[in-house]
Order: sequence, then C-alpha cells, then structure tokens
Amino acid sequence: MSNARRSERGPMMTGGTPLRSLDEEELLGHIFPAFPPGADLVVAPGDDAAVLRTSDRTIATTDTVVLGRDWLDAWSSGADIGHKVVAQNLADVAAMGGVPTGVLVTLVADPELSLEWVLDHVRGLAEVCTAAGVAVLGGDLSSAPPGVVMVSVTALGRLDGEPVLRSGARPGDVLAVHGSLGLADAGLRLLQADAPDRLPEATERQRRPEPPLAAGPQAAAGGATAMLDVSDGLLRDGGRIARASRVVLDLDLSALVPDVDALADVLGAEQALDCVLAGGEEHSLLATFPAGVLPAGWRAIGTVRAVRDDEAPAILVGGRVVTHTGWDHFRAT
Amino acid sequence: MSNARRSERGPMMTGGTPLRSLDEEELLGHIFPAFPPGADLVVAPGDDAAVLRTSDRTIATTDTVVLGRDWLDAWSSGADIGHKVVAQNLADVAAMGGVPTGVLVTLVADPELSLEWVLDHVRGLAEVCTAAGVAVLGGDLSSAPPGVVMVSVTALGRLDGEPVLRSGARPGDVLAVHGSLGLADAGLRLLQADAPDRLPEATERQRRPEPPLAAGPQAAAGGATAMLDVSDGLLRDGGRIARASRVVLDLDLSALVPDVDALADVLGAEQALDCVLAGGEEHSLLATFPAGVLPAGWRAIGTVRAVRDDEAPAILVGGRVVTHTGWDHFRAT
Repeated sequence: MSNARRSERGPMMTGGTPLRSLDEEELLGHIFPAFPPGADLVVAPGDDAAVLRTSDRTIATTDTVVLGRDWLDAWSSGADIGHKVVAQNLADVAAMGGVPTGVLVTLVADPELSLEWVLDHVRGLAEVCTAAGVAVLGGDLSSAPPGVVMVSVTALGRLDGEPVLRSGARPGDVLAVHGSLGLADAGLRLLQADAPDRLPEATERQRRPEPPLAAGPQAAAGGATAMLDVSDGLLRDGGRIARASRVVLDLDLSALVPDVDALADVLGAEQALDCVLAGGEEHSLLATFPAGVLPAGWRAIGTVRAVRDDEAPAILVGGRVVTHTGWDHFRAT
Repeated sequence: MSNARRSERGPMMTGGTPLRSLDEEELLGHIFPAFPPGADLVVAPGDDAAVLRTSDRTIATTDTVVLGRDWLDAWSSGADIGHKVVAQNLADVAAMGGVPTGVLVTLVADPELSLEWVLDHVRGLAEVCTAAGVAVLGGDLSSAPPGVVMVSVTALGRLDGEPVLRSGARPGDVLAVHGSLGLADAGLRLLQADAPDRLPEATERQRRPEPPLAAGPQAAAGGATAMLDVSDGLLRDGGRIARASRVVLDLDLSALVPDVDALADVLGAEQALDCVLAGGEEHSLLATFPAGVLPAGWRAIGTVRAVRDDEAPAILVGGRVVTHTGWDHFRAT
C-alpha cells in the first residue's frame, strides 16, 4: 500500500475503551480466551514461552504491518488486519511446501487504541488460525507513541518433505499459479477511489487475503521445483524465481486473459493488466513444475527456459522484458 | 524503564546515512553477511521462510523493545539494544529449560534512522547469537512514523527434557537464583542520575544483560520444579511462581545481603534493597528445587511452603507480605 504512508488517530483510537485504562493482566484476560488451542501445543502461552510439538524440520518466517503504511483505519477493521497479517505469514510457510502450525503475535500500540479494536483484531486472527489449524504460541504487548499501531507475526510450520525454494526452477519447467491474480490490488485501487462496492470480491481480497495454504504441500509432493507466494506482484516475484534459479521465465499473456477480464469491466483494460502483472498482496502461490505433472488446481501461465548468452535471468511477458520496480519500504517516494 | 516514556529523534537519527537513501535489497545486502549461520539452519533467510532442524518439541517466545519506552538513544548504542533484545528472549527459552537455537528479528523504524546505527545493532545481536550458538532465521523491515524505532524478536529453542513451568513449585522446595539481583536496575538508576561510571558493572548489566543460559537446561536436568527469568523483579516474578504453583515463597533476607551490599555503597541501603527485591531486566534465573539437590552455581534464597487457610499464594520477605505493583505497559503512570 505504497501511497498510504501516513499515520492517523482515527476511529480505532477515538471510540470505546482505551487500552491505557486496563492493566496488562486484564488485557491478556480478554485476549487469551479467544485464541485457538491448536493440536500441536504442548505448553500454552502464559509461561515464559510456549512449547510446540515439532518434526525434524521447522519453517519460520515473520512479517509486520504498520498503521498508515500497510493499512488505513478507514478501510480495514481490526478483524481484517488480524486476518491479513496472519494469512500473509501462513502463505510464506505454504510457499516453502510446509503446513503452518503456530504463530506468535506482537501488538505495539498507542495506549489510546480501543480495546474494542483489539478484541475485533484478535477475533480476526483467531478465525484464520482456527481455519488453518494453527495454534497461537504467544505474543507481546507494548505501548507506542501517539498514532502508532503495528502488528508483527511470526509463523512456524511443519515440513514433511523437502523445502521448495525459489532457486530450483529448471529449463523446460512449466510456470503455474494457484489462485487469483490482481484481485487484491484491484481492491486497493477501488478503496483509493472510494468505490469499494464496484467489485466487492476485490475489496474483500485486499482486506482478507485467502492464500491457498493446502496447495503448498500439494505442490511440494507433486514435484514443484520452485515456489513462492505472490506478495509483491507477479513480475517482481517471478523475477525472484528467475534470478535465484538463473533462468528465464516467459509468461504467456493469453493465459492471463481470464484474470484481466475479471477486472477490466470495472478498472479498464490497462489498469486491469497492471493489477494482474504487478499487483501485490494477493498471496496466491507461484511455482514451477516439470512439464506434464501439474497438480489439480494449478494452471500453467508460462514456461521456463535457459538464460541465453546475451541476457540476464528475468521474467518476460510474451518474450519481451517488462520493467517494474515495485516499491521499497524505506526509499522516499 | 518506566520513566523513559517519550519518543525522540536523537543522534541515531541525525548522524550518518539515513535508511531512506537505500533500497531494501541494498540494506539487506549490508545486514545478511553479519548474521551467524547457526548449526541447525537447513535453509537460511532469503527465501519465503527459513528452515530450522528441530527436535520433537520446540520452545517459542517473543519480546519487543520500543525507543523511548524501553531504551533511550543517549543511554544505549545500537549494539547494546541488539544484545539486550536478543538476550532477554533467549532468557525466556532458558527459563523453560531449553537451549535457544534461532531468532527472527523485526526492525520497524523511522526512515531517518541511520544505517550506521542499524549495522551497529546487527553487530550487537550477531555477537550474542554467536556466543549462544543461535541462528538468525529471518526478519522483517518496515518504515514507521517520525521518531519511532522498535525491534521485535522471536526466539526458538530446543527442549531435550520436560519443560520447567512456573506452576511446579511444591511445599518443602528450596527457592534459588542463578546470577545477580538488582544490578540492572541499579544501572538504570545511575543512568537516570547521569552517573553511569559510579558502578560500571551495573550500567553494563542494564545495557547488556547476561542471562545464565546454560543454567536453564542444567536446572531442568537437576530436578527444578519451577523456573522463570527475573525480568520484572524478584518480588513480582516470584509472585508469579507462587500464584501459578499455589504456594507461598518465603525469601530469606539474609541470603540477599551480598546482593544488597554490592549496591549499597553507591546507592545507599534503601535503594539497594529496592533494586534487589523489585529491580527488573536482570534476566537471572529463579527456580525451585527439591531440598538437597541444588545444582552448582545456584544459591538458595528462600523456601517454599504450603498456603495456609487464611492466606493467598504470595511471596513473603522474612515471613511478611511486601507489596510491589511494578508497572504496566499501557496504564497511564
């Protein structure tokens, strides 16, 4: 959400019961009961640390969202943010070929933040954890300067087979996607245009991404050679596979026509194509497979070929280089 | 650091190269090489997630520090904060009886924060990770509103035996501590009094806590019935063991005389006792053991007895109730 770079003290801080009116134990007393227990939890949160039943290899990843940079109070509820920050972490576990098992959640917030927002937030994250069979392993609460709210999640996962890295794509592989493309970015554009109802499916995807978690281990078992989740856009994330694997990915634009068509009526063809090629926060899975073995639910959108003498590893669209720089967290824009 | 509740834009933001002048890849290019690899790392950071070799049970905990609330730029260097936030997380792993194996580190910062501070910070956290044999499994970088810097760490650990909880203390046990008491709080008071050199050992402990990590698994193997690390003060943390175990802990004040004496020359007897009984951020380990089995390095400081009909679980000092409320993160003070 590159153009939402501002802090605010909106409704989430001005209605209801401010956090400063509770002590930490009271606050945790509200929060803990909402957490799903999780099948693999040996020691629940509340001691120095939690204990999780694990296999011989554990996947770990972390991702943080900041009010004003990653979301706006006016566009997303507490539950939306709880859902989104957990879902994007679980997507990273799935993108390694793993099954998410646990999360730790840290809330750093202006003490004016309302308890009602926090409880709604906890409901959102508990829902997505419950649906995925994921335990809440713990967390931390800290106060922050006025207007600041951030949520940081660490997700753990179980790896039953070999991890699927970005670096394993081989010439001759098929490039495939599981899930939608461009929908979350279209939703962001509609929110920015104050027209969220023009394509509710897109707005909902922006607010509550639905990564195809089961498709990660499915792809790993089905022979995927490289995989990641589309968090920064098809071109940017595809470029990561290309560079890590030292190959060229060639997107077949005709395979993306259904994705573009789904958005073009509302956004126009040009913006729709931009959403599909460069839209972030979708959290669908992008992977490469040996030709002929595409598992159910995956659709081919391109091919992998060797790098020629005169070129660098890259992602091409219909054989041509398309540049897209995306955006950086610290760079002034 | 209850009275340091203010944000600032001090030297860490005004000298050197601001983060906003780098893109994320450049910044990560500076940071990644400083991370220790760690013996149990199967897939290093840089993909969607890292993969850690694990045993059948994994300990997980998380803790966050915020500029202006948990530290002041004028008092602590970037390396100090890197050391401290990792050490306090590793202490929680040790306090379960575990061996820390990996950390994930998230930095959310004002883009004016200097690269030099960040690199110093990374050095500090890499040093403490290397000393403990802990791998850096990943992290996240995000920008924050002006003046905001926070670091969130999640630590993972291996559990070879049974976890030592807070709830296992039994009447007849001995209460024991491994490590110093009150030193970190004395250091904070000296920093507040602008006299850090009056007891450099205390100031250093405040800036760079040294939890006795090996004493955690040692205590677990040696029969500890309950354990935690002293993060909020002996009375407050001892009270947690008492309530979780439904027992009374009775501190023997004479056993604390050496701790008080070590501080009394500089702080006076009253403040010294307050540091020893209520001083936080020490991260020494506090545990209960069956009588007669105290492992090497642990010293008895009290006893555990049953709760009588007319009393609640509590920690007593020489048989008397001492109230100390500590401080809360969100409560206005």
